[in-house]
Amino acid sequence: MSDTMLALTKTHAGPGVALVERPLPVPGPGEVLVKVKAASICGTDLHIYRWDPWAASRVRPPIIMGHEITGEVVDRGPGVQRIQVGDYVSLESHVICNTCRYCRTGQGHLCPNTQLLGVDRDGGYAEYIVVPEQNAWPNPPDLPLEVAVLLENFGNAVHTAFAFDVRAKKVLVTGAGPVGLMTIAVLKAIGARAVYATDITDYRVAFAQRMGADVALNARTTNVVEALMDITQGDGVDVWLEMSGAPAAIEQGFAVLRPGGQVAILGVVGRPFTLDWDHGIVFKGAEVKGITGRRLWETWYQMRGLVFSGAVDLTPLVTHRYTLEQYEQAFATMASGESGKVMFMIG
Amino acid sequence: MSDTMLALTKTHAGPGVALVERPLPVPGPGEVLVKVKAASICGTDLHIYRWDPWAASRVRPPIIMGHEITGEVVDRGPGVQRIQVGDYVSLESHVICNTCRYCRTGQGHLCPNTQLLGVDRDGGYAEYIVVPEQNAWPNPPDLPLEVAVLLENFGNAVHTAFAFDVRAKKVLVTGAGPVGLMTIAVLKAIGARAVYATDITDYRVAFAQRMGADVALNARTTNVVEALMDITQGDGVDVWLEMSGAPAAIEQGFAVLRPGGQVAILGVVGRPFTLDWDHGIVFKGAEVKGITGRRLWETWYQMRGLVFSGAVDLTPLVTHRYTLEQYEQAFATMASGESGKVMFMIG
Amino acid sequence: MSDTMLALTKTHAGPGVALVERPLPVPGPGEVLVKVKAASICGTDLHIYRWDPWAASRVRPPIIMGHEITGEVVDRGPGVQRIQVGDYVSLESHVICNTCRYCRTGQGHLCPNTQLLGVDRDGGYAEYIVVPEQNAWPNPPDLPLEVAVLLENFGNAVHTAFAFDVRAKKVLVTGAGPVGLMTIAVLKAIGARAVYATDITDYRVAFAQRMGADVALNARTTNVVEALMDITQGDGVDVWLEMSGAPAAIEQGFAVLRPGGQVAILGVVGRPFTLDWDHGIVFKGAEVKGITGRRLWETWYQMRGLVFSGAVDLTPLVTHRYTLEQYEQAFATMASGESGKVMFMIG
Amino acid sequence: MSDTMLALTKTHAGPGVALVERPLPVPGPGEVLVKVKAASICGTDLHIYRWDPWAASRVRPPIIMGHEITGEVVDRGPGVQRIQVGDYVSLESHVICNTCRYCRTGQGHLCPNTQLLGVDRDGGYAEYIVVPEQNAWPNPPDLPLEVAVLLENFGNAVHTAFAFDVRAKKVLVTGAGPVGLMTIAVLKAIGARAVYATDITDYRVAFAQRMGADVALNARTTNVVEALMDITQGDGVDVWLEMSGAPAAIEQGFAVLRPGGQVAILGVVGRPFTLDWDHGIVFKGAEVKGITGRRLWETWYQMRGLVFSGAVDLTPLVTHRYTLEQYEQAFATMASGESGKVMFMIG
Repeated sequence: MSDTMLALTKTHAGPGVALVERPLPVPGPGEVLVKVKAASICGTDLHIYRWDPWAASRVRPPIIMGHEITGEVVDRGPGVQRIQVGDYVSLESHVICNTCRYCRTGQGHLCPNTQLLGVDRDGGYAEYIVVPEQNAWPNPPDLPLEVAVLLENFGNAVHTAFAFDVRAKKVLVTGAGPVGLMTIAVLKAIGARAVYATDITDYRVAFAQRMGADVALNARTTNVVEALMDITQGDGVDVWLEMSGAPAAIEQGFAVLRPGGQVAILGVVGRPFTLDWDHGIVFKGAEVKGITGRRLWETWYQMRGLVFSGAVDLTPLVTHRYTLEQYEQAFATMASGESGKVMFMIG
Repeated sequence: MSDTMLALTKTHAGPGVALVERPLPVPGPGEVLVKVKAASICGTDLHIYRWDPWAASRVRPPIIMGHEITGEVVDRGPGVQRIQVGDYVSLESHVICNTCRYCRTGQGHLCPNTQLLGVDRDGGYAEYIVVPEQNAWPNPPDLPLEVAVLLENFGNAVHTAFAFDVRAKKVLVTGAGPVGLMTIAVLKAIGARAVYATDITDYRVAFAQRMGADVALNARTTNVVEALMDITQGDGVDVWLEMSGAPAAIEQGFAVLRPGGQVAILGVVGRPFTLDWDHGIVFKGAEVKGITGRRLWETWYQMRGLVFSGAVDLTPLVTHRYTLEQYEQAFATMASGESGKVMFMIG
Repeated sequence: MSDTMLALTKTHAGPGVALVERPLPVPGPGEVLVKVKAASICGTDLHIYRWDPWAASRVRPPIIMGHEITGEVVDRGPGVQRIQVGDYVSLESHVICNTCRYCRTGQGHLCPNTQLLGVDRDGGYAEYIVVPEQNAWPNPPDLPLEVAVLLENFGNAVHTAFAFDVRAKKVLVTGAGPVGLMTIAVLKAIGARAVYATDITDYRVAFAQRMGADVALNARTTNVVEALMDITQGDGVDVWLEMSGAPAAIEQGFAVLRPGGQVAILGVVGRPFTLDWDHGIVFKGAEVKGITGRRLWETWYQMRGLVFSGAVDLTPLVTHRYTLEQYEQAFATMASGESGKVMFMIG
Repeated sequence: MSDTMLALTKTHAGPGVALVERPLPVPGPGEVLVKVKAASICGTDLHIYRWDPWAASRVRPPIIMGHEITGEVVDRGPGVQRIQVGDYVSLESHVICNTCRYCRTGQGHLCPNTQLLGVDRDGGYAEYIVVPEQNAWPNPPDLPLEVAVLLENFGNAVHTAFAFDVRAKKVLVTGAGPVGLMTIAVLKAIGARAVYATDITDYRVAFAQRMGADVALNARTTNVVEALMDITQGDGVDVWLEMSGAPAAIEQGFAVLRPGGQVAILGVVGRPFTLDWDHGIVFKGAEVKGITGRRLWETWYQMRGLVFSGAVDLTPLVTHRYTLEQYEQAFATMASGESGKVMFMIG
C-alpha cells in the first residue's frame, strides 16, 4: 500500500471539486480501513459540488466527498471485534456518539453529535476510507456491487416505507427520484394494495412504472389530485410518502390524503413555505412523521431481509457508471434528472 | 309538556342570536328527548354568534345553537334500548352515520357524514333537544352539573393528552384556554414528568398554574423558547400539545421540541401560514398528529376513568354561570379571554 | 319463492345431521335475506357434526349448520340502508350487539353478546339465510365463488397474519390446515423474509409449499426444532403463528422463538396443558396474542385490499365440491386431513 | 486504598456465603471502580444463598454476590468518557455485549451474551466493584441512598408497569413483594383508574394499601376472583401485572382478565405448570408479554422522570438496614416475607 491515495476532494470553499492526492488514512481504536470498491452519488453530493448556501454553511474544506460506499476491509485498528479483514462491507454514513440519550435508547439516527461521511468528515470518493467498526455492515461475498453500494441510500427508502403500516392500503409516493423509486419497490414487496407515484419528468414516471407503481403520473401534464381521487373512487390515499421536497407536491399530497391518513416525509424543501395546516393535518386527524437517515441499526437488518430474500431487486436502479476521473460527467448525469443512481467504480 | 320551548336560535344569516319559541322536538326511531339542565359555550359558538366567514360558509339558519349539553332523558323514540327515561346524560355532539368505513372501523370521529349539534342540526341552548340514543352518555346521579356539562369539551382535552405516551416525559401545552387547562390537569394525572404551559394573558397563565402546570409562561412578556430550553437544560420538550391556533406559538413549539419529539394539534389557525417544515418536522424526525373531536366512544370511557377515580377534578373550570336570557353577557364573558368555561343554567 | 327450503340441520342433540325442510326465514328490521350460492366447511362444523363435548355444551338444536357463506341478497327488512337487493355478498358469521363497550370501541370481535351463525342461530347450509345488514359484505360481481365463500375463514388468516409486523422477518406457521395455508399466502404478500411451516401429514406439507412456504416440514418425521435452528443459523424465528392447537407444536414453537419474539395464536387446544411459561414467555420477553374471529370490520377491508389487488390468490384452496345432499361425503373429506377447503355448491 | 477488600462471597458450590478478603478490583478499558455505599437484597440473591437447583446450574464460585448497588466512582480505566470520578451512581446489573443484534437495535435487555453482576461476574456486596462505564447511572448528589440503591429493582417495576397503556384503566397486580409494591406506586402515578393487588400475607396486603392500591386482597382468605368481578361490576380488569410466580395467582388473573385484556409477566414460576391456554389467552384475544430486566437504557430515563418529579416516592420501601457482617440476619429477614427491601449499609 502506498501512503497516499487519490480522492475526490472539496479543496476550498466554492463550487467544484478536485481529484487530488491525499494521505492514506490510518484506523484508530475501534476503526477499520476500507478499500473502496464503489461509491454512488446522492443529491447531497450535488449540493456540495455546487456549493449552495446549505453546503457553504455546513461543510469545512478540505474534505473528501462521498457517503454511499462499499468496499473491502483491509486493516483494523486496536480493539476491533466483530469486523474481520477481508469482509465485504457497505458503510453506514452516520458516525454517532454512542453516549448521548438518543444513542442509548435505540434512536441513534437522532444523535445530535452525528458526523456524516463526506460532509463532516472524510468520505469515500477515494481509494480508501476509515470508519468506526460499527459503521461497517458485512455483506455476503456474492452480493452484487450495484446492490452493496446502494444500501445506505436504500436505507432511506426502507426507513420511510416502514414508517407506517401499508398492508392492504393505498399508498402515494410523491417524487420518483432514486429513493422514491426504491421505495416503490419496497411498498410492492410489503403488501400495499396499490402504489401511486408522481413526478415531473416522463423519464421518472416511466421508471416508477418499471419499479412496480400501479399508477405513475406526470404532475406537469396531469391534474394529479383529480386523477387520484378518481382512481380511489373518492376515498383518497391511506398513506402518503413525500420524497419530492416540492411545495406543489405537498399540497397535492394533502389534498388526496384521506381522513386519518398517514404521511412520512423524507423530502427536504429547503425553505419555509405556506401550508394549510388546518385542512391538511388538524381536521383530517392526519399523522405526519419526519424521516431522517436510517434506524441504527434496525433498518440495516430490515434491508438484509428484503434484499437477501429476493423481495426487492435493486439492480435496475444503477443506470450509469463512471471512474473517479470522470467526475464532471458523473455529476452532470446526476443533475440531469434523467438517471437512476450514478455510480463510481473505484477499487 | 308544552309543545313549544325557548331556544337560543340563529334565526338568520348574520351576527347575533335570538331567544325565541321553537316547536318541541319529537324523538324518532333510535332517538331520545333530553330536558336540558345546563349547557356551556365553546369557541365555535362565538364564531357562529359573530357570524365569521367560517360560520357563514357552514351554518344554515334557522338553527338552535349549543353543543356542550347535559340533561335528563324524558322520552324515547321507538327501538331505543340502552338509555332509559330518567337517565342523567351528557351528550356527544357528533352525530355519525354508523355505516361508512370510518364508523365501521372504530374511527367514527372521522366520519365524513357527521352532523354537529348546534352547527349542522339543532343544538342544546334550549329547554329540550333530541339526539340519537348513542349520543347520550349516562352519568351517575351524583355527578356535579359543572362536570357533566364539560364532558364533551373535556373529551377534546383527553383525546389530545392521550395522543402520545407522556409517562415520565416533559410536555409543553401552548394555549391555556379551557381545553388547554383541562389538558394540563390530565397530563398531571397520567404521569408527565413536567408540564409547561404558555399563553398570552396573565389570567390564563395563572389559571394554568392552578390547574397544575409546573411552569406557566406569558409569551407576550417572556422569551418562551429561551426559558424552556433553559428549564430543560437544553434538551427541549418530549411532547408538545398545540391548543392555541397561533402561528407564533407553533413556531415556538417546534423550536423547543426535541429530536424525535411528538406533537398533537387541536388548535385551529384559521388560514394557511408559513412553516419551516424541514427543521420543524423532517430533520427532527418529529411526529405530528391532528386531533379532531373525541374517539367514539373510547374517549368517553377514558373520561369516565379519569373523572370517577378522582384523578382529574374539573369543577374549578366553570367560572361563570348565566341564564339563557343573559346570553349577551355570557358571550361577552367568553370573548373576554378572562374566563374559564361559561355555562348556561337551563332546566 | 316457496315458503320452505332445504337445510342441513342439527335436528337433535347427538351425532349427525339431516337435510330437512325448514320454513323460509323472513328478514326483520335491519336484516337481509340471502339466497345461498355456496358454503364451505370449517373445523367447528366437524365438532358439531360429531357432537363432541364442546358442541354438546354450546349448541341448542334444532339449528341449521354452516357459517362460511356467500350468496345473493334477495330481500330486505325495514330500515336496511347500505345493502341492495341483487348484491353479491359474503357473510360475516359473528352477529354482534353494537351496544356493549367492545362494540362501541372498535372491538366488536370481542362482543360478549355475539351470536355465531350455524352455532347460536341458524346458519347457511341451506337455500336461504337471514342476517343483519351489517353482516353482509358486498363483493364485486366477478369475484370467483371459490373466493367469496372463503372470505369469512380467510379473515382468520388475515387477522392472525396482521397481528404483528412481519416485514423482513422470519415467520413460523405451525399447522397447515386451510387457515394456516391461507396465512402462508398472506405472509408472502406482506414482505416476510422467510416463511417456515410445519404440519404432520405429507399432504399438508406439500400444500404449504405450493402456497409459498420457503420451508415446510413434517413434524412427524423431522426434528423441527433442530431443523429450524439450523436454517436460521441459531437465531430462531422472529414471529410465530400457531394454528395447530397441538401442545407438541406449541412446545416446538417456543423452542425456536427468538428472544423478544412475537406469537399469535389461533389454534385451540381443547384442554389445559403443561407449559414452560418461564422459558417460553418470561425470560424471552416474548409477546403472545390470542386471536379470535376477525376485526369487525377492519379485517374485511384488509381482505378486500389483499384479494382485489391480486396480492393473494385463494382459488387453489378449494379442493373439493359437493352438493348439500352429499354432506356425508363432504364431512368425511374434511375429516380426512387430505383436503384444502371443502365447499357445498348450493344456489 | 488497600489492595484488598471485604466481600460477601459464594466461596464454594453449596448453601451459605462468607465474608472474606478479596483483591481490590482494577478497572480495565472503559470500566469504572465504584466504592459501594449501599446494596439491597433481591429474591435472586436468596436463591444463590440457599443454592437451589437454578443457582447450582448457573453460578460458578467463587463469586461476590449482589446486584442492587449504589456508590461513588473512585477510579476510571482508560477510555472512559461520560462518567467522572466523584459521580454518585446506581448500577445497572446487566453487562451487555453492545455488538449483537439485540444490543444494536435498542433491545439490549435481551442480549444473549449478558453477564449479570453477582451471578455471572463479581457483584457488589463488597467495598468496591468494577463495572463498564455504561452500567453506571449518575444520580443527583442529594438523592437519598434508599432510593439510589433501589433503582435497579425499581427498573423491573417500571418496565412492567410501562409494558401497557394503563391510563384510565383497571389494573390488577398479583404479588405484592417489593417489586409489586413499587409497581403499585408507579401505576397510581401514571393514571390507572384503579389498582387492585393480591398477595398471601396480611403484611404485604397492608403494605400494598400503603403504597396506594385501591383494593388489596389476601388470596389465602378471600375468594379473589369473586371479589374482583364484584368490584368491577362483572367487567374484569383491563390490565394485569403478574409478579407472584404462583400458578394459583396466574389462574386467578386469567379468570378476572377482560376480553382483549393485557398481561405483563415478571413473576417466575420455576417449573412448567398446567394452563388453560384456550380460555386464558385465545378466546379472550388477550395479549401477554414477558418482562425481563430493564429496557437499556430507556427504563433508566423513565425512572429518572418518575423519581425526580416526585411522582413516585420509593423511600417507604426500605424496611430493614444491616451491615455486611449481619448478612445472616439480613437474608433471614428477606426470607421471612415480612419485609420491604432489605439493605446493606456498606461504604
